[in-house]
Amino acid sequence: MREVRILEIKQSVFADNDRQAQSLRKELKEKGVFLLNLMSSPGSGKTTTLMRTIERLKDSLRIGVMEADIDSDVDARTISESGAKVIQLHTGGMCHLDAQMTRQGLEGLETDDVELVILENVGNLVCPAEFDTGAVKNAMILSVPEGDDKPLKYPLMFSVCDVVLINKIDVLPYFDFDMEKCREYIHMRNPKTKIIPLCAKTGEGIEEWADWLLEEAENWKK
Amino acid sequence: MREVRILEIKQSVFADNDRQAQSLRKELKEKGVFLLNLMSSPGSGKTTTLMRTIERLKDSLRIGVMEADIDSDVDARTISESGAKVIQLHTGGMCHLDAQMTRQGLEGLETDDVELVILENVGNLVCPAEFDTGAVKNAMILSVPEGDDKPLKYPLMFSVCDVVLINKIDVLPYFDFDMEKCREYIHMRNPKTKIIPLCAKTGEGIEEWADWLLEEAENWKK
Repeated sequence: MREVRILEIKQSVFADNDRQAQSLRKELKEKGVFLLNLMSSPGSGKTTTLMRTIERLKDSLRIGVMEADIDSDVDARTISESGAKVIQLHTGGMCHLDAQMTRQGLEGLETDDVELVILENVGNLVCPAEFDTGAVKNAMILSVPEGDDKPLKYPLMFSVCDVVLINKIDVLPYFDFDMEKCREYIHMRNPKTKIIPLCAKTGEGIEEWADWLLEEAENWKK
Repeated sequence: MREVRILEIKQSVFADNDRQAQSLRKELKEKGVFLLNLMSSPGSGKTTTLMRTIERLKDSLRIGVMEADIDSDVDARTISESGAKVIQLHTGGMCHLDAQMTRQGLEGLETDDVELVILENVGNLVCPAEFDTGAVKNAMILSVPEGDDKPLKYPLMFSVCDVVLINKIDVLPYFDFDMEKCREYIHMRNPKTKIIPLCAKTGEGIEEWADWLLEEAENWKK
């Protein structure tokens, strides 16, 4: 596997994260770089979904990936195989990324030749939802084995997301997961959230998700 | 379903959490109350495992359960059906419990008639590992769909746990999960960790786990 650059990001010293995030988003707009913040529980399939997404979009967009993790660089090494530009961010134990940490990551990645940057946030349904990273859109993955009741338990995460990918639909027959109930719970938190059931392993549903992302990234450059 | 008492716990004002935790543990020892801190990702099966555990131990031990959640009381209502004493703790958005928050929960639960208290911590593999709750033992659940590589990504969680339950082994045929590799990764973090594969849904493996817990709780009273 290819060598991956690892960046140790520092905890932010800025109290006013919302202002930092707004200012980062403005700069990204000027540069025409679309930043997607991808969140989920540990093990919901963020990396596999990313691999499929890159595979589908790499001929349409120049893609960069920031892999945020407490430790290890296993995901970044996997992503580097996809041909996307990738950097591993180590958060030094921090459970989330804020706007200033995201900015450090973007500087490390170098975005001059990139149109779409995907931030794979720390696997956690609580803390990442509390911090605006400066991303243009927030996405999350909920996987079938986690259960359809998660929007009841992690309200903020579901209310800040523009799109929820329901992953691992290939194992629906083996779990008590009610898709309609799940849709209803998600829309209780945010009626505007787009919901896309998919299976990153087989590729089912990836097209709809990739089309959405491509359209958003192209609108951002206008 | 039975009515469940909901306690809004306050964020701790004590800087020295370790000292608070030690002092809570000492009081629990004097009272002969065994406190287990149960942690995991969202959707790994904490509540189902708890139901099975209570079913198996309720004739041997008087059991109390503290359900910590950001929001909702769905788990507490489920647990109340088991016959165990239960209280719902709302953390007000906090991603973890510390010793002082745990103490508030124990006071709300009232432990005079209880020998084993299980704290179902917030579903999160990052923050709960950083705070000693005052529990006698830490346990966590890793479920098969989350993947065998989680000990590489969440090192602190796996290093603070005395026992790791590997749940949902009934779906092993449908996931790329290498049990031996997982054991190896867990023992890299903590060579003394006890590992118990089980399936809370079918009950497989619950006996070994319940026996371990019963023995620990009985030793604690000596």
